[in-house]
Parts: sequence; C-alpha cells; structure tokens
Amino acid sequence: MKLLDGRIVKKDILDGLKVELSMVKKKLCFVVIQIGSVSDIYINSKRKLALDLDYDLILVKLDSDVNDIDVISVIDKYNNDDNVDGIMIELPIPSRLNYDVIRNSINPNKDIDGVTDINIGKVVTNNGGICSCTAKAVIDILKYYDIDVSGKNVVIIGRSNLVGKPLYNMLVNEDATVTVCHSKTKNLSFYTKNADIIVVCVGISNFLTGDMVKDDSIVVDVGTNVIEGKLCGDVDFSSVKDKVSYITPVPYGVGQVTTSVLGENIYKCYVNREI
Amino acid sequence: MKLLDGRIVKKDILDGLKVELSMVKKKLCFVVIQIGSVSDIYINSKRKLALDLDYDLILVKLDSDVNDIDVISVIDKYNNDDNVDGIMIELPIPSRLNYDVIRNSINPNKDIDGVTDINIGKVVTNNGGICSCTAKAVIDILKYYDIDVSGKNVVIIGRSNLVGKPLYNMLVNEDATVTVCHSKTKNLSFYTKNADIIVVCVGISNFLTGDMVKDDSIVVDVGTNVIEGKLCGDVDFSSVKDKVSYITPVPYGVGQVTTSVLGENIYKCYVNREI
Repeated sequence: MKLLDGRIVKKDILDGLKVELSMVKKKLCFVVIQIGSVSDIYINSKRKLALDLDYDLILVKLDSDVNDIDVISVIDKYNNDDNVDGIMIELPIPSRLNYDVIRNSINPNKDIDGVTDINIGKVVTNNGGICSCTAKAVIDILKYYDIDVSGKNVVIIGRSNLVGKPLYNMLVNEDATVTVCHSKTKNLSFYTKNADIIVVCVGISNFLTGDMVKDDSIVVDVGTNVIEGKLCGDVDFSSVKDKVSYITPVPYGVGQVTTSVLGENIYKCYVNREI
Repeated sequence: MKLLDGRIVKKDILDGLKVELSMVKKKLCFVVIQIGSVSDIYINSKRKLALDLDYDLILVKLDSDVNDIDVISVIDKYNNDDNVDGIMIELPIPSRLNYDVIRNSINPNKDIDGVTDINIGKVVTNNGGICSCTAKAVIDILKYYDIDVSGKNVVIIGRSNLVGKPLYNMLVNEDATVTVCHSKTKNLSFYTKNADIIVVCVGISNFLTGDMVKDDSIVVDVGTNVIEGKLCGDVDFSSVKDKVSYITPVPYGVGQVTTSVLGENIYKCYVNREI
C-alpha cells in the first residue's frame, strides 16, 4: 500500500502557482464569508494559504440569524469591489437560508469555489469554468501519482453539489467509466467491490470498510469529519489500508490539496477578469 | 416484453400542455436554425408540433459556409425579439463552427433545448432550468409507465452534452445509481449485464445486442440513425426484445416524446419570461 500524500501534491501545485504569481503586480485578495459557527479548521487553512501566497484575506463573520438579503448584500459589495478577486461562502450555512439563491449571487468570475450554476455547467460541458476545489483536488492527486483514470471503473459515493456532482462530471470528461452511488443505492458493496478507484465523499466517518473494496484498488477519502476534536475521513483506514494499492490519508490527503486549488482558482479568477 | 410506446406518452404530454395553452392569449413562437443540410425528419417533426399546438415556427436556413458571427447575429436578432419565445439550433452543425460559443449565445430564457451552460448547471444542481428535450423524454417515458428509477442500477451508454450528460445528472437527482459508459469504457458488457435499466445514446445502429443485457431489464433506445432512408435506433431490437421486460421501439419511442417536451419547453420559456 502506498500513501497518496496530499502535502507533496499541495507543494507541487503551490510551487507552480508561485511562479505565475511572481509576474503579477497586484496583491490578490479573496473574501471568505463565515455564517454562524463554522469549524476553525477550515478558516485556519485559508489563513495559512493567504500567508503562504501573500494574498489578502477578508474574513466576513455573519451571525447565524442573518437572512438571505443580508448575505447577498455582502456578496454584492465584494462583487462590485474591483480589488476583490474571489468570494466564497464557508459551508455549512444555516439550513434556513436559501443557499441556491445565495451561491448564484456570486459573480461567476469571482466564484473561486465553483458553486454557481454557470460554472458547474461549464465544468460539465468541459467548456472552461471555475471548478469545485475539492473535486479538482481529487483529480490532481490522481494525476500527480500518474494514476490514469481513462477506461477505469471509478465509483463515487456521494452526490453533493459541492463535491460529488462536479467530480463525477469531471471524471467522465477524463474518460473514466463513472458510477455515482449515494444513500438510495442498493447493494453498495457490489459497486465498490468491482471498482478500480473509489472516491468517498459522504461525510460519515468509517463509512467505507475493508470488506467493501477489492484487492489493489485505489481509495480516495474526501471526508473531513471532526470527531472529538480530531479530523477523520469517511474511510475506515485501518481495515482498508492493507487491501488497496493506494490510499489518501486524513489528515494530509485531499484537504491539503483542496486549499492549494483554492489558491489556483483565485489566481484564475484574477486572470480571467484581466483579459 | 412490453413496448414503451412513445406515441402514448407524447399524447399524454401534449394533452396536458394544451390545457395550459388554452389560457395563453399570445400565439407562442419558436425559431429553429438549420445550418447546411440537416435531415428533414427533424425539421418535419417541428412543423407538425407547431401545427398541433398552434405555435408559430420560424425556420431559418443558413448555408453550410456561414461563420460563427453570422450564426450569433441571427441568434441575437431573435434573442431581442419579444415575440420569440424560444430558439434552438438543429444539430449537427458544421464542425468548423464553434458550437460552445454559438449555443451559449442563446438567451438562457429562450433556450428551449437546454443547451446553454447555465441551464445545464441548473439541471445538475436540480435548481430549475430548461433541460435537454431528449433527456427529459427518457425520464418522462419511464415515469409514464410507472418505472421507478430510485435505487436502480441504471447504465447510460453515451456522454454527449445534448443527451448523455444532462440525462445522467437528472437520473442521479431521481435517486438512480447511475453508471456512465462511453467509447473509452472497457468491458462494456459487464456494466450492461448488471443493469436494471439501460439507456443507449451512442448514435450507432445495432450497438446494444441481446447478449449484453440481463433478463427482464429495461432498455431505452435514444438512437435516431437514418440507414438507407429508414430511421433505426442504437439497439439491435430483434435480439434484445425477447430478453427484456420493457423496450422503446424506434421509430415511435423516445423521438416522439422529445418533440412534445420541446413543446413544453417553449411554453415554460414563455411563462418564465412573463413572471
């Protein structure tokens, strides 16, 4: 078994990005909107990114009792601020809010987490577009380790708008044979046991166990569950690790790369607005 | 084996639509842009639809040597014509043209075939949006015959922007476990032999044969190949029909329903612009 080390992939992405950034005169700036109490783990990773890339980070903290209009007016302010290159909303947000309206109020050219319908559509049709950081991180890890997905049996467990949906569309565009499994799937093990590559993004710790995977398959764990203050993934690492050929650990797997893709997306948004 | 008769589903859709239309004072109007020589089969079905629903049809025939700007200027004219409720481009178009730019120049509120990136994105996130007529036709046929896709193993062969991609996203939203197969898929029969429902949209006649399907599965044939002037599907009907529980014929299957969904989409676009 070989670990797919997110830290190495992250460094590779950031090193490449820093070369690009060395030619940019402006200090890039992104806005993270935090509504109510969101885990500090996510906010801290953005602070580190900003420090590492010398980006300005504007952290906007809103009370959990805000309404849709409050959130949209904050987004609008930064949509119209020429100095701001990117905007994202830290998830989860209170279920009371209309996330569909809120996410689509972000200027698609500043949509650094690829959450607007227009960017999702562009990703589906392979027509440019800013993609989900996490979905792109999965692809980047596989590419860094020379794991060709073309023609492979790839099973994705999870179909969220943020990760599962953009990821399966991206993998189909990368020529994988993709199966999307989710809470309504019957006989999940049938699919996972036949998979060459399994990506788990369900948000449930220890969801994928060793008896569900075939020998020498590849497992990518997108989970970032916080259990008793400790970060753990969706894969039962101890029972899976000895069966598979490659596996991403949590921490130091997909999450590391996700943040570096965010750094890239901020730069892409800046470039797209410049040209 | 039972035939899934597109003519019955078509009548059901059109009957419902006519009730809605009886309350509309305006005569609805749609534009079909034909570039070069496109099979008359497709154009004729739009003529019949217009006649049946009392819609105005504006057929714009452009020479095969037009450039992108010519096409976009025609689209722009009708984007800005308040009397026009919908615009579509008959496919295929000459490969020389930039279809990505052309399709996205259609006003999303007049995009009656669901080809713009914004409408595709909305379909993926289940956030409204005008959907591909053919993809919706497949869903409508299954629903009409009370075939529940939830939790079912559904295999789609084909990943075009017009059919395969919107369809697999719609089926995931309908709780199916969906596998997307295509030209790069290895061991296609493994997937089809395990499928409860197979949808074929590859554009190759006799592509799916009886030895590739399991007993009592359901087969939907999206193919509209014209062989020696005769319309035929992607399924080898004679070898498949006796193994399956349901199958759509060609002609009188999906194609019939596709045109009636177009009629619905024109009405939806009208309503969306009115409110």
